[in-house]
Amino acid sequence: MPKPFQLDDFVLLVPANPEKQQRWIAKVGEKFSTAGGVFDLSELVGREPGCVLVSHLGEKIFAFRPTPSDWVLYAIKRQTQVTYPKEMGYILVRAGVTAGSKVIESGSGSGASTLMFAFAVGDSGHVFSYERRPEFSELARKNIERAGLSHRVSFKVKDIADGFDERDADIVFLDVREPWLYLRQALDGLANGGSLVVLVPTTNQVSETLRAIQNLPFVDIEVSELLLRHYKPNPERLRPEDRMVAHTAFLIFARKAQENSDSEKFKSDEGVEAWKGKETCQDFGC
Amino acid sequence: MPKPFQLDDFVLLVPANPEKQQRWIAKVGEKFSTAGGVFDLSELVGREPGCVLVSHLGEKIFAFRPTPSDWVLYAIKRQTQVTYPKEMGYILVRAGVTAGSKVIESGSGSGASTLMFAFAVGDSGHVFSYERRPEFSELARKNIERAGLSHRVSFKVKDIADGFDERDADIVFLDVREPWLYLRQALDGLANGGSLVVLVPTTNQVSETLRAIQNLPFVDIEVSELLLRHYKPNPERLRPEDRMVAHTAFLIFARKAQENSDSEKFKSDEGVEAWKGKETCQDFGC
Amino acid sequence: MPKPFQLDDFVLLVPANPEKQQRWIAKVGEKFSTAGGVFDLSELVGREPGCVLVSHLGEKIFAFRPTPSDWVLYAIKRQTQVTYPKEMGYILVRAGVTAGSKVIESGSGSGASTLMFAFAVGDSGHVFSYERRPEFSELARKNIERAGLSHRVSFKVKDIADGFDERDADIVFLDVREPWLYLRQALDGLANGGSLVVLVPTTNQVSETLRAIQNLPFVDIEVSELLLRHYKPNPERLRPEDRMVAHTAFLIFARKAQENSDSEKFKSDEGVEAWKGKETCQDFGC
Amino acid sequence: MPKPFQLDDFVLLVPANPEKQQRWIAKVGEKFSTAGGVFDLSELVGREPGCVLVSHLGEKIFAFRPTPSDWVLYAIKRQTQVTYPKEMGYILVRAGVTAGSKVIESGSGSGASTLMFAFAVGDSGHVFSYERRPEFSELARKNIERAGLSHRVSFKVKDIADGFDERDADIVFLDVREPWLYLRQALDGLANGGSLVVLVPTTNQVSETLRAIQNLPFVDIEVSELLLRHYKPNPERLRPEDRMVAHTAFLIFARKAQENSDSEKFKSDEGVEAWKGKETCQDFGC
Repeated sequence: MPKPFQLDDFVLLVPANPEKQQRWIAKVGEKFSTAGGVFDLSELVGREPGCVLVSHLGEKIFAFRPTPSDWVLYAIKRQTQVTYPKEMGYILVRAGVTAGSKVIESGSGSGASTLMFAFAVGDSGHVFSYERRPEFSELARKNIERAGLSHRVSFKVKDIADGFDERDADIVFLDVREPWLYLRQALDGLANGGSLVVLVPTTNQVSETLRAIQNLPFVDIEVSELLLRHYKPNPERLRPEDRMVAHTAFLIFARKAQENSDSEKFKSDEGVEAWKGKETCQDFGC
Repeated sequence: MPKPFQLDDFVLLVPANPEKQQRWIAKVGEKFSTAGGVFDLSELVGREPGCVLVSHLGEKIFAFRPTPSDWVLYAIKRQTQVTYPKEMGYILVRAGVTAGSKVIESGSGSGASTLMFAFAVGDSGHVFSYERRPEFSELARKNIERAGLSHRVSFKVKDIADGFDERDADIVFLDVREPWLYLRQALDGLANGGSLVVLVPTTNQVSETLRAIQNLPFVDIEVSELLLRHYKPNPERLRPEDRMVAHTAFLIFARKAQENSDSEKFKSDEGVEAWKGKETCQDFGC
Repeated sequence: MPKPFQLDDFVLLVPANPEKQQRWIAKVGEKFSTAGGVFDLSELVGREPGCVLVSHLGEKIFAFRPTPSDWVLYAIKRQTQVTYPKEMGYILVRAGVTAGSKVIESGSGSGASTLMFAFAVGDSGHVFSYERRPEFSELARKNIERAGLSHRVSFKVKDIADGFDERDADIVFLDVREPWLYLRQALDGLANGGSLVVLVPTTNQVSETLRAIQNLPFVDIEVSELLLRHYKPNPERLRPEDRMVAHTAFLIFARKAQENSDSEKFKSDEGVEAWKGKETCQDFGC
Repeated sequence: MPKPFQLDDFVLLVPANPEKQQRWIAKVGEKFSTAGGVFDLSELVGREPGCVLVSHLGEKIFAFRPTPSDWVLYAIKRQTQVTYPKEMGYILVRAGVTAGSKVIESGSGSGASTLMFAFAVGDSGHVFSYERRPEFSELARKNIERAGLSHRVSFKVKDIADGFDERDADIVFLDVREPWLYLRQALDGLANGGSLVVLVPTTNQVSETLRAIQNLPFVDIEVSELLLRHYKPNPERLRPEDRMVAHTAFLIFARKAQENSDSEKFKSDEGVEAWKGKETCQDFGC
């Protein structure tokens, strides 16, 4: 049996009228006001998801448990551009974020990517989330707390120029303005064979990051973007929506190859060449 | 420390030459032949991911642990069209497949979606995978076995016209030729509030599915498609690749609303109207 | 020397502030009001395009001669969905609308496609524009008149179920709700080897049209759609705009093959088969 | 009546079997060999377009008059990347290339864009096509000659660093590796109010061009790209093709604003500021 709603659970509200495209996440027990009237969310206690509530004005609304995508789209209190579900889903499967993964990310931003990672790593994994600005770290922390996932995330207020505290992460995710400045730190945080993921909005940032990545032992580099197109769900007049999101971000993926102990070489311009000359596992220090 | 490779582990092989775009998944201990020569994968035992191997012809190749995306793209032995990582990633976050989820899918096909779901649900969740044709069920079973995830999946050779054996699933995923015939069965398998996901390649199938879905208590319907565009990772000449995959599939998402006990109504054309008249949770039998 | 503006010429107005994305088409001699103040367009008389005007509030605006795309986007008074420049440009080069072409179109709508065709056929070509609703025909006529191209277009208020008056057109363009009902009429209007172009917004309409087209001697069938993505023109932060038009229409192209004199065959279901049996030019009546 | 084929006319050949996607342009009178046998194109003399020919092996093929798009896709002998119909169509309507237009372009390349412009300007317009490498100029010249449009084009073998010979062009089209080096020359060639169009494949080139354009009196800047997606024309299984062209080029559009006689200012970095201070048409020398 699906677990019935309890007091203080979060709930996704979906208007029964399919023309209404707004969605909200609220808390069981609250009074929740929309243009269609006030809903008494204490009525949900003991009921299963998928049930209907009626406002004091007679408007109907469905109550569901929010999915990770719902959390990001409707619950995250945003003070920054958030990472969208379409990118996050691809990152999870492409970089291999699964139950038990150890993830380092920076910056915390509003906590959208933090939340997605926290859902994916399960109770056996962990997310280390770095942010330089205390107010954003606090915002992200609260957003994760609301989702009940605080035990899976460690927030750190710190300039990542000084490096990450952790080693042997499965994934390092950089969502910062100048990721090319922190690739050495990302490399040091990653386990051998781990995945680097960089998210940037402009082509100039992609070029800068690629330039820097070439000097470090990162391989299997992919640059990509995802477009999500919605259709009007009318079976007799099926067609894409009139407008869509044209761009959120470019993604860069790379994997950490082993470097030899003389890692200084990779910090210089001759890094690539030095590295390309390596022949065997032993040359790379393994 | 990242776990070193052991005998019989699966390994993703990435040519050191970035011009070479092929990837393979092989087994530690095997001799592996490519156009660039034979690699002795027993050399990997005891080494960490990200190390380099050299073939008898001097070609270098990197060894990594495969991610879910790698498994689907390079390991799945295919006799059917497989579900791509871009769609699967979005399905996971949109429908809410996380550690502990209970997933029903049909058909098993080659096991690509099975694998993605198995990675996502962790050891605390489970996937029930239905397939009518014994030879495909067997193929999918073997693909899951190779990935070491057999304990998370139950394969069933069965015509889903007769319904699913399970109840209260968090997600039902339909990847069959005529999904509109099995929506009632999907509904019965889902927990209240659970997510239906349908994957079909043609617009005609989208229309047929939408027609049928309207007669059942499914709400929050989304039809969408995802386009993934790769870029050439050249910082001084950044541009998209010349060609891309233009289409894999359309996705349909819906959530199960509660219906009242008189579910016969939803099988008829008057279903929608009957259902639209319901006012409260109690009317819907909750 | 470029011809200077004269009284009653049409002029495209582009705000000097690149942040302002609005554009207008107005008439030399008018007073033109914007949020940035009133511009006296009589100042333009005798000046060349590309000059600057200043409003009574000090706002600057550039004056250009409108291109066909400008006319459609900024001048057409719309009471219908208009055909966009991206589609029209592709139609012109794909179907072969050039100086001297004879074009039949239906419906006239607001005259957007009429205008594009009129620009392309030059003074040696002609456009025959059919519309059932007198008020739309009148609207389209006025829009063409404003652009000074009336001599290139004949407007007809007529139900095309009764057929077109013309024969031997190079192009027949159908932008109507149920184009599949008028394919025989289109065929009769086309010259041998001429191009049929159909524009429809939904996939259902595409399917219906394709079903009907198969029973007639149309070959070289193409179904396509065009996506236009704009970028923010910032050299240091180059990236696509946040949002874009996701869909305007699907295009169907076909060419008229010769049919034999016994054209009745093509009206029946056995049409395709009958036609496929034809072996030579003579069998097709040429 | 459509003009029947004559000896030496060019003809587009379309296989009667819709599965065969190849197309060719050949000459009436030739023997034309395909995998399906030899066609005697002298049989076409006196027949109308849209008729069927049969090869010595019994294969059927349709004969049509090529449209501008056909010319570019199937007739141009290519030694360079050609400009695609989707871009050319949009350029024509966006920049305003119509009957009577005066167009300057560089480089000639294989003559694909030359051909499109030549079709569009009619006998009352003209195209001036610059190319530094004599062998390409010759190739383009031959391609235009084949299409019977030589009288509309003047080919010039010349380094455009030295400027264009013409003034007052309606459109200047730059399809060269470093367009940012020739923007002053483009400006000098354009009529006041005329359109600049730049085509480049990489984002780095877009950025470089935008940087340079800001120092010159160009306004109404647009950066865009066009995606063309084909669908399988099967009414019962309608869906996009599996693969598509992901990228051909980025387009940059701008219009020439009037500058004052002291044009030196626009060659310096202070150009923009100098120019932004201008208030009226007179300030800009009009």
